[in-house]
Amino acid sequence: MSGVLQGMRVVESSAFVAVPLAGMTLAQMGADVIRIDRLEGGLDMTRWPVTPSGHSHFWAGMNKGKRSIAIDMRDARAREIVTEIICAPGRDSGLFMTNLAVKGWTDYETLRAHRPDLCMAVLKGDRHGRPAVDYTVNPAVGFPMVTGPEESSEPVAHALPAWDCIAGNMIVSALLAAERHRLRTGEGQYAEFSLKDVAAAMIGHLGIIGEVSVNGTSRARAGNALYGAYGQDFPCYDGQRVMVVGLTERQWANLLKVTDTTDRMQALASELGVDLSDEGERWKARKAITAILAPWFAARRVREIGPMFDKAGVTWSVFRTFAEALDQDDDFSTANPMFSVIDQPGAGHHLAPASPVTFSGSERRPACPAPRLGEHTEEILADIAGLSDRQIGSLFDAGLVSSPETEIRMAS
Amino acid sequence: MSGVLQGMRVVESSAFVAVPLAGMTLAQMGADVIRIDRLEGGLDMTRWPVTPSGHSHFWAGMNKGKRSIAIDMRDARAREIVTEIICAPGRDSGLFMTNLAVKGWTDYETLRAHRPDLCMAVLKGDRHGRPAVDYTVNPAVGFPMVTGPEESSEPVAHALPAWDCIAGNMIVSALLAAERHRLRTGEGQYAEFSLKDVAAAMIGHLGIIGEVSVNGTSRARAGNALYGAYGQDFPCYDGQRVMVVGLTERQWANLLKVTDTTDRMQALASELGVDLSDEGERWKARKAITAILAPWFAARRVREIGPMFDKAGVTWSVFRTFAEALDQDDDFSTANPMFSVIDQPGAGHHLAPASPVTFSGSERRPACPAPRLGEHTEEILADIAGLSDRQIGSLFDAGLVSSPETEIRMAS
Repeated sequence: MSGVLQGMRVVESSAFVAVPLAGMTLAQMGADVIRIDRLEGGLDMTRWPVTPSGHSHFWAGMNKGKRSIAIDMRDARAREIVTEIICAPGRDSGLFMTNLAVKGWTDYETLRAHRPDLCMAVLKGDRHGRPAVDYTVNPAVGFPMVTGPEESSEPVAHALPAWDCIAGNMIVSALLAAERHRLRTGEGQYAEFSLKDVAAAMIGHLGIIGEVSVNGTSRARAGNALYGAYGQDFPCYDGQRVMVVGLTERQWANLLKVTDTTDRMQALASELGVDLSDEGERWKARKAITAILAPWFAARRVREIGPMFDKAGVTWSVFRTFAEALDQDDDFSTANPMFSVIDQPGAGHHLAPASPVTFSGSERRPACPAPRLGEHTEEILADIAGLSDRQIGSLFDAGLVSSPETEIRMAS
Repeated sequence: MSGVLQGMRVVESSAFVAVPLAGMTLAQMGADVIRIDRLEGGLDMTRWPVTPSGHSHFWAGMNKGKRSIAIDMRDARAREIVTEIICAPGRDSGLFMTNLAVKGWTDYETLRAHRPDLCMAVLKGDRHGRPAVDYTVNPAVGFPMVTGPEESSEPVAHALPAWDCIAGNMIVSALLAAERHRLRTGEGQYAEFSLKDVAAAMIGHLGIIGEVSVNGTSRARAGNALYGAYGQDFPCYDGQRVMVVGLTERQWANLLKVTDTTDRMQALASELGVDLSDEGERWKARKAITAILAPWFAARRVREIGPMFDKAGVTWSVFRTFAEALDQDDDFSTANPMFSVIDQPGAGHHLAPASPVTFSGSERRPACPAPRLGEHTEEILADIAGLSDRQIGSLFDAGLVSSPETEIRMAS
């Protein structure tokens, strides 16, 4: 095992996006991440997208490079073993994260009795402990009302589970910060936050609370326009669509130069009596600006526009489907050192990403397949819980733990 | 200063969302974060939303709790001073992050000559070093094509700069991971990644690459439906709209129970010959399910539905504008310990969030205003760069550094 976090061990009890993503992120940076599941697998075991035969591409993607133990946590002895795994000794162990916290044996106070310096990170739905998911947090905080076509009043939800992805990365930071504190003081930490608070905080960080409460305005939807400066999507002659950005003065100047509209924009600015080098003025005049630029795009194909824009230093992109992105963009290929082809049990060979982050002094761990459910049950029971072969055998015999081989035995 | 990262010092040279968000996140966890800007402020100094008088709510939100130094980095002596600030000694210093990397004096190799164990995190646009922003990365990877009304074929961009927010949190992790490695080995690290790779990796993590390349399908847009299970938005009698989620079996059962549709769903399942306790079957039958549920919502007001759903354990939310969220939801108020009222120079008093994360053994630092540009120029030059009053005075006299007082002097 390689990577900047080599030697670190994290135990995860989780489902869905945020916490599994956090564990996977740590695993891709070199940590030994152990996902603990029920015998039948977690709530996300069959989450879509799935292969035609029902293997979850989602689960595989979120659990790459982890070790898996399957154990029946309804049983008291099994709970003791899981406690031992979570609280195993070692300076770089005793790190636990979960989004499945319920009052009981995985409470911080209970676990701490076994390892006083345990660091534990818990993600809740909302701050009151009520369930909430990305699909409910997003409507609650306001983004769907400013997303989508300008002429529509229908709310539009994002397709990326963005709050989950943000929260997942915050779990990583919280656990690293807690461990950093432990290394300095010897003290463990219980870190806790909620998905809804992540979203509520971001509304503040982005200045939207100030906009509402100081300016007394609530943002209107603006289609695909870049908020507060200039940026717009344009249909091209070939039916494709591109996004262009004039956020900074340089981007704006480059865009006008290559589209040969500098003079017309100056005329527009004079007519409106504004200075279009001011980003806010570009925002207010965006429709007039777009009307000037649109014919240029409508008369050109993306294959002409692309090289012109790249040469002129315009920040832009074509709109693609997922399939087109994979087919056309070599950032989605092994030409990108982040990607490699893995053989994922149940799904076969396909492209998979490692961590986007490279560290000069540590290897980037190549993408690894996700484990099969319970693939590492035996080795974890032996090496971490310290059980003998006989003890492990009796757990299997009692049906309290399983591995892929167990299932095969049971099926035959 | 309090917080789990107390004692840590991070220097930031940045603009826009990701890196400023990373610095602010570290500051809210207790780190001393120094943002270094040009005399006229960064490229994001006036980013929208702005107050009627032109103060940026965005800038204020992204720079809460940092210290600010304004210095003319075109000057060689100023660059030396900035190098000294970045490379200042101390076990908890020597941490630098930027999205403004250009070949030259802030290269890792150049800076390392001043502090061999420097940890530096750099966010680029794409892996080739070309500029890219959230507004161009998102179309390139495919999400806008699956966002928005099902009947439309127009791409819809997200309004939340999600990739920036994710990348910002990854910078935090990368810097903490690099520092962790340094603490163990004494070695610094250069950590680097690109916004586009963050998005490309997430496409893989979410199982979308598998879906395209193994199944040979590219996801179709599905409006506000929850992908792969059941979840849908419904208009209510009062004209409001709610989102309900039947992702897990329990959520699904609770939803049917409270809407009294269990029998009708069983009849639907028999008719279709499918098992609706299978999340994928709920997804495939979502339109028929929605048709059964819709009349229940259409006949009820949100103020009736809400208490029924809360009692029945249904995961749901109403859709709100930003202003409604702030007005109606006490999670956006000082009833939520994450929030406090700050006095932001230029914007006045308003609600602002601290870190969403609480740590049992460290204080949560309350939200602090953002600094005024150059507010800490003098103290940073004195305490970190170790300059004398006379040296600092001559820098001010030469116009190489500034503080809010300088501006006042110049204006009078």
